[in-house]
Amino acid sequence: MIAMTVRVGILGATGYTALELLKILVHHPEVEVTSLTTRQEDRPHVSSVHPQFHKVLDLHLENLGPSELAERCDCVFGCLPHAASASVIPEMLEAGMKVVDLSADYRLNDPAVYAQWYGADHPDAERMKTTIYGLPELFREGIAEAQLVANPGCYPTGVSLSLAPLLKNGFIRPDGIIADCKSGVSGAGRTPKLGTLYPECNESFAAYGVGTHRHMPEIEQNLSVYSGKAVSVIFTPHLVPMDRGILSTCYAIPDKDASEKELLALLEETYANEPFVRVRSDLPATKHVAGTNFCDITVRRVKDRVLTISCIDNLIKGASGAAVQNFNLMYGFAETTALL
Amino acid sequence: MIAMTVRVGILGATGYTALELLKILVHHPEVEVTSLTTRQEDRPHVSSVHPQFHKVLDLHLENLGPSELAERCDCVFGCLPHAASASVIPEMLEAGMKVVDLSADYRLNDPAVYAQWYGADHPDAERMKTTIYGLPELFREGIAEAQLVANPGCYPTGVSLSLAPLLKNGFIRPDGIIADCKSGVSGAGRTPKLGTLYPECNESFAAYGVGTHRHMPEIEQNLSVYSGKAVSVIFTPHLVPMDRGILSTCYAIPDKDASEKELLALLEETYANEPFVRVRSDLPATKHVAGTNFCDITVRRVKDRVLTISCIDNLIKGASGAAVQNFNLMYGFAETTALL
Amino acid sequence: MIAMTVRVGILGATGYTALELLKILVHHPEVEVTSLTTRQEDRPHVSSVHPQFHKVLDLHLENLGPSELAERCDCVFGCLPHAASASVIPEMLEAGMKVVDLSADYRLNDPAVYAQWYGADHPDAERMKTTIYGLPELFREGIAEAQLVANPGCYPTGVSLSLAPLLKNGFIRPDGIIADCKSGVSGAGRTPKLGTLYPECNESFAAYGVGTHRHMPEIEQNLSVYSGKAVSVIFTPHLVPMDRGILSTCYAIPDKDASEKELLALLEETYANEPFVRVRSDLPATKHVAGTNFCDITVRRVKDRVLTISCIDNLIKGASGAAVQNFNLMYGFAETTALL
Amino acid sequence: MIAMTVRVGILGATGYTALELLKILVHHPEVEVTSLTTRQEDRPHVSSVHPQFHKVLDLHLENLGPSELAERCDCVFGCLPHAASASVIPEMLEAGMKVVDLSADYRLNDPAVYAQWYGADHPDAERMKTTIYGLPELFREGIAEAQLVANPGCYPTGVSLSLAPLLKNGFIRPDGIIADCKSGVSGAGRTPKLGTLYPECNESFAAYGVGTHRHMPEIEQNLSVYSGKAVSVIFTPHLVPMDRGILSTCYAIPDKDASEKELLALLEETYANEPFVRVRSDLPATKHVAGTNFCDITVRRVKDRVLTISCIDNLIKGASGAAVQNFNLMYGFAETTALL
Repeated sequence: MIAMTVRVGILGATGYTALELLKILVHHPEVEVTSLTTRQEDRPHVSSVHPQFHKVLDLHLENLGPSELAERCDCVFGCLPHAASASVIPEMLEAGMKVVDLSADYRLNDPAVYAQWYGADHPDAERMKTTIYGLPELFREGIAEAQLVANPGCYPTGVSLSLAPLLKNGFIRPDGIIADCKSGVSGAGRTPKLGTLYPECNESFAAYGVGTHRHMPEIEQNLSVYSGKAVSVIFTPHLVPMDRGILSTCYAIPDKDASEKELLALLEETYANEPFVRVRSDLPATKHVAGTNFCDITVRRVKDRVLTISCIDNLIKGASGAAVQNFNLMYGFAETTALL
Repeated sequence: MIAMTVRVGILGATGYTALELLKILVHHPEVEVTSLTTRQEDRPHVSSVHPQFHKVLDLHLENLGPSELAERCDCVFGCLPHAASASVIPEMLEAGMKVVDLSADYRLNDPAVYAQWYGADHPDAERMKTTIYGLPELFREGIAEAQLVANPGCYPTGVSLSLAPLLKNGFIRPDGIIADCKSGVSGAGRTPKLGTLYPECNESFAAYGVGTHRHMPEIEQNLSVYSGKAVSVIFTPHLVPMDRGILSTCYAIPDKDASEKELLALLEETYANEPFVRVRSDLPATKHVAGTNFCDITVRRVKDRVLTISCIDNLIKGASGAAVQNFNLMYGFAETTALL
Repeated sequence: MIAMTVRVGILGATGYTALELLKILVHHPEVEVTSLTTRQEDRPHVSSVHPQFHKVLDLHLENLGPSELAERCDCVFGCLPHAASASVIPEMLEAGMKVVDLSADYRLNDPAVYAQWYGADHPDAERMKTTIYGLPELFREGIAEAQLVANPGCYPTGVSLSLAPLLKNGFIRPDGIIADCKSGVSGAGRTPKLGTLYPECNESFAAYGVGTHRHMPEIEQNLSVYSGKAVSVIFTPHLVPMDRGILSTCYAIPDKDASEKELLALLEETYANEPFVRVRSDLPATKHVAGTNFCDITVRRVKDRVLTISCIDNLIKGASGAAVQNFNLMYGFAETTALL
Repeated sequence: MIAMTVRVGILGATGYTALELLKILVHHPEVEVTSLTTRQEDRPHVSSVHPQFHKVLDLHLENLGPSELAERCDCVFGCLPHAASASVIPEMLEAGMKVVDLSADYRLNDPAVYAQWYGADHPDAERMKTTIYGLPELFREGIAEAQLVANPGCYPTGVSLSLAPLLKNGFIRPDGIIADCKSGVSGAGRTPKLGTLYPECNESFAAYGVGTHRHMPEIEQNLSVYSGKAVSVIFTPHLVPMDRGILSTCYAIPDKDASEKELLALLEETYANEPFVRVRSDLPATKHVAGTNFCDITVRRVKDRVLTISCIDNLIKGASGAAVQNFNLMYGFAETTALL
């Protein structure tokens, strides 16, 4: 086999997921980053947008269309906001590029659910129905052959990985599930807003989007598809005064009798060959997965409930690391390339 | 009536609750702080222990016994660790002083429950059975006449205030309640420990004491006594990288049909005359109660659950502010004195 | 004398200095806050702008002109940006109100220096030449009679208080002074900007405005006027990942021989009767003045230099507390009213 | 040449520098980590000491003597406290191992200076006089042949790299230099102490060790040796509420006329071929070097002074990254191996 470097572009390269993606891709032995896009017309150097890359990467962000990108790239990672993403991705696909989309646009498979939660009809509804959801630990099959992969949301990643095996094996009921989740502020993006200004969220802790966050149907879809049951989840996100990390505390009603030890053993067994899921018996902390593509999970029995606690780095396993994991699968590279 | 200044002492004056108590008491118009105790024998000046008081308070911390304290104090606030507290408070009471105990020692009323959760028989079991629990919003009656008041735990305060009216009025079931709570680090005290070292908990979020935290039976006792039902709660505390504040997200199963609006109205009505409970329709944040004795509460209906979210400053309404509120009631001062 | 409540307004009530001002003024026994202004036309309730005031203050922010304000207010505090402030304050004064201006507009007394540093001619140049600079510890005389007081900048407060006595008494040279200053993020205001977004400044430390910050000429003016010497200062501000507090480390060349002890004694003596300056022999920390109107100062001799280190809460002694201190002097109230 | 894996041990593997060292070494293609030491006798698994290594590294910390280490290791990294380090390193060297010592013990070359600053005679004085100081950018020659390398202190690294070229080329005077430095809390180590407890240093900023910090003579030695002049520096360290990063703001008196542009050009030229020093014209921030072995430097002219500002990650370029850089030189590996 001839070693072929994959020429890669990033759509919307000014935010935090693009920054983390770049940090990973510059160390990926099979990748050359050729293009970074922005809507700005002044071609800013990447080091003026992300000072981390001073003398590391010599590229300019450019306002590029699909045909220009297709000349330079074999594959693009989409870091655009939802809706913006689905408005350009069809052209990217038609131009022959592979796409890993980090936006929410192709994650849901039901146009009606999308319309309900995103307040508008999906602009590319036929494609969304069959786009593969790139959470390899649950849905690896099909990623390798996909031209387009929908990269999972940050909250759905940790919640789904911790609950899916318990649901599928009938240990917990598909109703009455609570996912109480806590995220660092980088999850809110890099666009200046009052709510994520330092003096607003430092030394503060609050819930947001209670009952209305769009990751709720995404979690339910994942768990339902994987377990074959209609799963209902109450999802409550909170903002933690830290840069990165998500911890999800989930509460479920047991559906058959099992000890903490048995539940832990089930998780251990399920993920025995997964390089990025670390089942542990002690309590996980976001700091211990920060900067990594790991998802740490534990399970507890307390009174009449089963608890799972999982941690990820929201920007890595919850976004850019997972995107590279999908990319590796799509190109036949070792799944852990540039990620361990 | 002749204005009589109350001479006050603080037992165990080196920690954070003592610091906050002092900050409040130096502004209390009816109080003179006369004594601060420590086990250290070198009589440190308060400004060497708490540099905030440089040129504000000219007192030394001293290793004082009950009779010495009784000569100088009418009332003492106990900021000792549990067990240490119950070993000295009986003597304080016998010496004629009133006591507000901020430790956990007199909060539970059932010696068997105490023994189960604290791993030892209670040294003053008869007294604990009848000691009043100083959460005025739920149990104001009796505080005014008490010689000893057990000051509530930080987590139980926010959880109990948000759930109690819903339970008592039959809107939620007494079983299947989940209290997912998040606290700033000051709640862990001022004794140096690896777990609360800055580089360990900064930029990290984790659960602790899952299923084993001693505030669980305290919450259940409060809610059971107040509602007249046997209440069962799963309580999960988490550590937030911030100094102060507790947010409690509680999930309960509805017991009768009620809209969000009706539930909010019930809370509004219950606390209409309470100076320190602020029911609000928007989502509370710990920053908005920081440095105050307020407990902010809201309620939500999501799918088949009722959610309450409450915020307090763990060191004020969760400890020292509540202690002064109790003190004010015990001495017939306006309940809000030095607290608004 | 009949107790007369002063009716007070705040111009530009949406930011952090206005928030802190309100927190102080609601506890001021001689004040009634009657008006809060904004350019917004939708009359937001103060609790929607500052959720801290839910059930504490029942006022709306309004777009009010000078005559409307004059009907409701005896005195206004200006929390507008520079330039905006000087464009409305003349009308406030003509309408008979007293004004404490927290902007930079009337701090400098030389129109040429203003033009150089602010890039435009001063719109009210005659008045600026004679406006009193409200740093009572250095320039108390005249504040009581003033109709307009220019409230000092945050950095100049700490730097000036620590160096002024040493300069005036000839202990340090007026040239070669370095003021290396570090501020919490609230000093950058409440307008959303990339640079003060949480994930940008959390876990980071950086200098800004090196050699170009507008507080440099303000510091030099203060020290020159107070000492009667032409003082030159190099001022370097830095951003600290915390909400509030400024620490200033200043380095000066000795001008006569003096021990650390003698220098400390000079500071002690200078500020012996000042209620808000606390000279201390140990090293100050911003935490120990947080939430107070104190300025903590120490002095050190290291090799061939004199060092001063001072701490303030940038929003209190560096802004809103100082403003109330000036207000108290202007109205003949005890200087410490509502501030201790 | 036969590829030979170097067998490596870490002395004192429980702290933050050991943690960072391990993170780097597990990715080093020429290294096998065989031994981790501790004084504890219970052989804790590395994942119980550093939960980050769960399922990543399967090693136990052991209390090992020199001969046991020599059987397993070709090279050891010393992460012991000063004094403890010099008491075991001679035996390591005699047993034939190479040593990179991250403690302060072999950094100074003058036993009298050591005795003055460390309060005791050096236990291995002859060796310290000639031990090479492992700051490759200034003293690369000799590292390759050394059996023992003294790894630089965190503060001296950033300060020395920014000032050395200016001194050596006569642009600044060797006297009157001020180094005002700010460090994240991890620099204080992992031993629980009141001063580094989260609620003590969060939301606070303070100086410490003013005029007495042991990195002062180390900086002066570096700059004097490199420039050939007797350099005097006033060094003031401060603690920043963040995990990692050091920013050093240095002030020097010009010794010949040079513009900011010329000074920047000198730095650019000096470090043109250094892989880890990034001269930049914009202002550096610690966040932009966090997690990397880079030292970012800029220079400014303000009034009658030259300012340099440099940033490093105190745990990487200020400790463990530099140690691996030295290790690479000692073994003839590419200097950037495992560091870029």
